[in-house]
Amino acid sequence: MTDQRIFNFNAGPAALPLQVLEEIQSSFLNFNHSGMSITEISHRSSYFDKIINDAADRAKRLLKLDDRFHVLFMQGGASLQFAMIPMNFLSDSDSADYVNTGTWSTKAIKEAKIQNKFHSVVASSEDKDFSYIPKDIEFSKNARYVHLTSNNTIKGTQFREFPDTNGVPIVCDMSSDIFSRCLDMEKFGLIYAGAQKNLGPSGTCMVIIRQDMLDMANENLPSMLKYSTYSSKNSMYNTPPCFGVYTIDLVLKWIEEEMGGLEKMEEYNIKKADLLYDFIDSSSYYSTTAEQYSRSLMNVTFRLPSGELEQKFVASATEKGLGGLKGHRSVGGCRASIYNAATMEGINALIQFMESFEKENK
Amino acid sequence: MTDQRIFNFNAGPAALPLQVLEEIQSSFLNFNHSGMSITEISHRSSYFDKIINDAADRAKRLLKLDDRFHVLFMQGGASLQFAMIPMNFLSDSDSADYVNTGTWSTKAIKEAKIQNKFHSVVASSEDKDFSYIPKDIEFSKNARYVHLTSNNTIKGTQFREFPDTNGVPIVCDMSSDIFSRCLDMEKFGLIYAGAQKNLGPSGTCMVIIRQDMLDMANENLPSMLKYSTYSSKNSMYNTPPCFGVYTIDLVLKWIEEEMGGLEKMEEYNIKKADLLYDFIDSSSYYSTTAEQYSRSLMNVTFRLPSGELEQKFVASATEKGLGGLKGHRSVGGCRASIYNAATMEGINALIQFMESFEKENK
Repeated sequence: MTDQRIFNFNAGPAALPLQVLEEIQSSFLNFNHSGMSITEISHRSSYFDKIINDAADRAKRLLKLDDRFHVLFMQGGASLQFAMIPMNFLSDSDSADYVNTGTWSTKAIKEAKIQNKFHSVVASSEDKDFSYIPKDIEFSKNARYVHLTSNNTIKGTQFREFPDTNGVPIVCDMSSDIFSRCLDMEKFGLIYAGAQKNLGPSGTCMVIIRQDMLDMANENLPSMLKYSTYSSKNSMYNTPPCFGVYTIDLVLKWIEEEMGGLEKMEEYNIKKADLLYDFIDSSSYYSTTAEQYSRSLMNVTFRLPSGELEQKFVASATEKGLGGLKGHRSVGGCRASIYNAATMEGINALIQFMESFEKENK
Repeated sequence: MTDQRIFNFNAGPAALPLQVLEEIQSSFLNFNHSGMSITEISHRSSYFDKIINDAADRAKRLLKLDDRFHVLFMQGGASLQFAMIPMNFLSDSDSADYVNTGTWSTKAIKEAKIQNKFHSVVASSEDKDFSYIPKDIEFSKNARYVHLTSNNTIKGTQFREFPDTNGVPIVCDMSSDIFSRCLDMEKFGLIYAGAQKNLGPSGTCMVIIRQDMLDMANENLPSMLKYSTYSSKNSMYNTPPCFGVYTIDLVLKWIEEEMGGLEKMEEYNIKKADLLYDFIDSSSYYSTTAEQYSRSLMNVTFRLPSGELEQKFVASATEKGLGGLKGHRSVGGCRASIYNAATMEGINALIQFMESFEKENK
């Protein structure tokens, strides 16, 4: 119970930039002199057209996307994408490669299985409890796509570089690190991201799809489960999640205009993560769980000497205004999620707290 | 461009109760002393548990639902439901009855067709441009369900009473009139409603499903396309649209605590609609488009003597702070959408404007 805003280390839904929240709040009863709340304006109005086009344009500029790429706003989160991807891109004779790096990849593979779609798990880090990102993967030559999860919120690992797939398009779940760093888009045929980590509120999923992927997609599907429905109607075949698209637009504006673009955003994210990892590495009390070269810039997972101390740590941090540090319920331990909106001030406060907790609980 | 809030007659996204918007605004940077925005709190937190359970409990109380009914929060709008309903409830040998009363029913039928699911269109009002609701329908005896669209935003018609289907469960799209009136729930196996008319922001779809419908559903489907995934996980198999669920909770609270419940809400809606229809009926300048016994309490569609006058009417109304009066782009004319949140003050302002417009443009 606090009247102050906390330092929010939630894994998702997660912290949003304070400036964005303040702008939403101040215009919430009357958006842009429309006399209506953003939640009340028609998606067929010029007000909303401007928002959705601005959000797509900003995404294109930030990621330096050329005209082959379409930016779509969908619903159902990454979980619906897990199902839509094999549904759209695998006919009865096709197969796809999947790399299994944790809970989310496992779920993506499960949805291909449910549909009896051919797929190969060409690499997995399950042998070491998903604590690393596989290297030197041998991809199939005829795969329609290679599916990767770029960042694993639960285990704290991340593809710091993307593998060479011999020209096979990568289809990538970037829910937890989209717009956190620059990307070589030549490798990607499709990127998808639930908004609730780096982009906005839950309930909106951004999809970036290349024209050649659209061209090879199955058209004989329910309207809401075809990518072409969204690309041909500017994501407005039916009413889109307007509040989510609006918030995403403001977050992308914040990255462009306040943070100075994606290169600067990436620098800031590296600086924040390095500070925290360096502190943990220098300590014999705290230890990271991910192998060094696979460490995530977004989710720093760490342990204390005992489960009891971890419980005490999380409770004591919460009391001091540092929220969301409990590890995922499936693995325990501690986790600091430090997405784009996490501030250096928050990282410093966390490290200071970790230092004093160690002293008091040796 | 206005610093005042307008009277908002949009068809959806549509007006929300001012009290609800003010509550969202005032707590937007710090929800319930959490130190976080509602958009930043974890869906696995006790904060959100309370919200989603409260929203479901209020829905159950308002509609007097017994324990057979589950209240679910989904994504993808009514359009995804069009596809999920035949997918979940029709096996290869089953068939369903559809009643075609306009654009939305037509789309629902289209999605059954795409999946090659057996269905019969047992009644249609297409012969008179969907200006009425069919009566004395003969339903099939062995249908798995009867699909109806309770209210047609575009043509301004509504099932004022629901037909006797000989015990076959009605599956009903109530996107534009849910919680606007009391219902005899014995008739319904499933109700679904995109939130953006009577419930909250776009991007959340409420589904009310009876246990026997769940029991007969196909389980061999992608996780996000099965109703059981939502019913077994309290709508949190994956991250739900938290902001939408939160707003719905506040709107249902407003109906219960401010409006005095669903009976009172219905009385208020009838009073508002009657006032407007009575005025139009008394005029030789304005005319309604829906047959009298099929008139919608939610969307009042009307014409002026010419298309030119209609354009002038909409533009002039907008200038005077009466927004959203243009008919759907597919049919033209004028339309006043007067959902739950539309106020008597707004109806009176509209009638006053209509009177003076008529005088000035005879």
